[in-house]
Amino acid sequence: MTLPLGYTYSAVYAGIRAAQKDDLSLIVSGLPANAAAVFTQNRVQAAPVKLSRKHLAASRGLVGAVMINAGNANCATRTGDAVAAATAKAAAKALKLPSAQVLPASTGVIGVELDPRKITAALPALVEGLSADRFQDVANAIMTTDLVPKTASAEVRLRRGVIRVAGMTKGSGMIHPQMATTLGFVMTDAAIPVPALRAILKRSVERSYNRMSVDGDTSTNDTLLLLANGASGVRPDPKELARVEGAIAEVMESLAKAIARDGEGAKKLVTIDVAGAPTPAAAARIARSIANSPLVKTAIAGSDPNWGRIICAAGNSGVAFDPRRVDISMQGVVVCRGGLAAPFSEPELKAKLDGPDCEIRVTIRGQGKGSARFWTCDLTEGYIRINASYRT
Amino acid sequence: MTLPLGYTYSAVYAGIRAAQKDDLSLIVSGLPANAAAVFTQNRVQAAPVKLSRKHLAASRGLVGAVMINAGNANCATRTGDAVAAATAKAAAKALKLPSAQVLPASTGVIGVELDPRKITAALPALVEGLSADRFQDVANAIMTTDLVPKTASAEVRLRRGVIRVAGMTKGSGMIHPQMATTLGFVMTDAAIPVPALRAILKRSVERSYNRMSVDGDTSTNDTLLLLANGASGVRPDPKELARVEGAIAEVMESLAKAIARDGEGAKKLVTIDVAGAPTPAAAARIARSIANSPLVKTAIAGSDPNWGRIICAAGNSGVAFDPRRVDISMQGVVVCRGGLAAPFSEPELKAKLDGPDCEIRVTIRGQGKGSARFWTCDLTEGYIRINASYRT
Repeated sequence: MTLPLGYTYSAVYAGIRAAQKDDLSLIVSGLPANAAAVFTQNRVQAAPVKLSRKHLAASRGLVGAVMINAGNANCATRTGDAVAAATAKAAAKALKLPSAQVLPASTGVIGVELDPRKITAALPALVEGLSADRFQDVANAIMTTDLVPKTASAEVRLRRGVIRVAGMTKGSGMIHPQMATTLGFVMTDAAIPVPALRAILKRSVERSYNRMSVDGDTSTNDTLLLLANGASGVRPDPKELARVEGAIAEVMESLAKAIARDGEGAKKLVTIDVAGAPTPAAAARIARSIANSPLVKTAIAGSDPNWGRIICAAGNSGVAFDPRRVDISMQGVVVCRGGLAAPFSEPELKAKLDGPDCEIRVTIRGQGKGSARFWTCDLTEGYIRINASYRT
Repeated sequence: MTLPLGYTYSAVYAGIRAAQKDDLSLIVSGLPANAAAVFTQNRVQAAPVKLSRKHLAASRGLVGAVMINAGNANCATRTGDAVAAATAKAAAKALKLPSAQVLPASTGVIGVELDPRKITAALPALVEGLSADRFQDVANAIMTTDLVPKTASAEVRLRRGVIRVAGMTKGSGMIHPQMATTLGFVMTDAAIPVPALRAILKRSVERSYNRMSVDGDTSTNDTLLLLANGASGVRPDPKELARVEGAIAEVMESLAKAIARDGEGAKKLVTIDVAGAPTPAAAARIARSIANSPLVKTAIAGSDPNWGRIICAAGNSGVAFDPRRVDISMQGVVVCRGGLAAPFSEPELKAKLDGPDCEIRVTIRGQGKGSARFWTCDLTEGYIRINASYRT
């Protein structure tokens, strides 16, 4: 994995979660990086989300460090705002940065007070441990119910040199991003001004994190951050910027897919393609409705080619279409043509559905060219087991 | 159970479903009854839903019989419309009624052709079996994944005599009614004109079936029918009509609650009360968002007083509110006050949550007087087991 230049990483166990795994981590940019971010749209927002917004405004989008803790969301707590401010300030002091250049992020249980002393006590070791090759340690330390760390990277050769993009993310439940999601950190060493970075992030989120769900719940802590520190010395020209955006979007797509694949209890990544809708937004609504249907998701868990549930979920999307002009295929096999059952070998298709990847394609004829891709996962008994006993 | 006068019932096994349990049933009103109905809002609608709409329009709301089959939704099939029409016509002939006075209703798997000969062959025995005391047999025959039949009744003493209301319903999964739901049949022997009946149904649905969900999926076959045949000889006067409406709404509320309690895999009925919202509609949105959150529903399955998930789901409802003015109680125990953890004994509350009824109350202070009640169930591994293998 090629990492962008100019970033260092560190992670320690600060005792925030019970399990003895690293739970406090730091991403530092040697030169303060231009930053763009999207945050949860939930009405209830965690203290670190509120403070990060404030800091980004105060620093005009300049970020020197991100400090992330797992195991406690620091949300709906009496001391949340004070804890976020005090710990960000302590980290800023240890790193010799203005406070506004440090962004906090938290993930974990909601409504439990977070003891700031656990963080301040761990800070010296955390800063001491900073190293360019500990990217993977941070990817591990931000996990909660995740089974695997989620990272992706890309490299783009431009006229004046190479630029690199690398990202990490966490998330496995309470996943239904709307303009933001979960925690995600994407770093590049390209030099990109803040306004361009914001536009790139907005478009890239639209085709990655906003096209993915596990369970339809949007968390209070969702944060997705894109940093560009310019350490490569390469400033893409306007034409090259599109290629850099492509690389960033691809990294974000990989991360979003990795979240869906690692959905709580999930055994399968489900990719839903909708084509022929009046508009891309209508296609996305149909795809989202299918992706959020527990009946579709349980059928896929059981390798059941139950296309009736797919057309039913599409019908619930609120998008007007003629059911008699709908074709559906699963794993490339046509199961419904013109809204009716198509002949297919059920045992053969069931066998194909046993694999770790499931593809659903819904095509509407005669309405338009709007298409969208969406990712989700199957819904298994594992999801219930994890969530009936997460907190206690 | 007191049944309304003037209705007869019958059920037989017609071989539509594999399991040898009655799957074809009939509700007949001796005098054609005034009728009001609401149907699914899904874009994909089953053939019997389309035909019932047509018949109700043609007969100006007069219904002589309802024929219901379980085991096959007669939806998204090549022959669906013809099958619905032919079988309704055959039933009309056997009952000596105009075709337009017979309403078909179906529930079961989507996308599988329904053989009309199974129904026509069973019709003689079905009609032969009609009897005033077989209400319960129909309530059993309309079940699919339901574990228990669902019925409710009421009696109202008016100035000129007594009127009776009785209803039955089915449904356990694919439950998220929007203006209609699942199958439900409510009969009264009061004499009520069609326009008044429609208004009563609309208001009663709003506080019963539209306030209940199991899994957030709306079926293609939802039908709720209210019949008033006047067999009691009592026509409520305008003042009395409010009391009759109260009885009808209560019966429908009981039926809706029974569906939530029997939700696929459910062990608990969850009642969610939201108060203090700007409007009743806003309160209902918040309650619906909590009721549809898989994280809330799995926490309740695990008897986990995880109020963080409740406030998070409320925050996702799209209704603006100040989290610092939110109180939450579970089983009457305050778990969150002013958006923060309230002190409570966790073992004691866990024990209280082990029962078959769970009550969640969310109060917002200082916004208004909008309140709403909503019913759902917990989400258990049983839901997955049932739905990963329903069809195959």
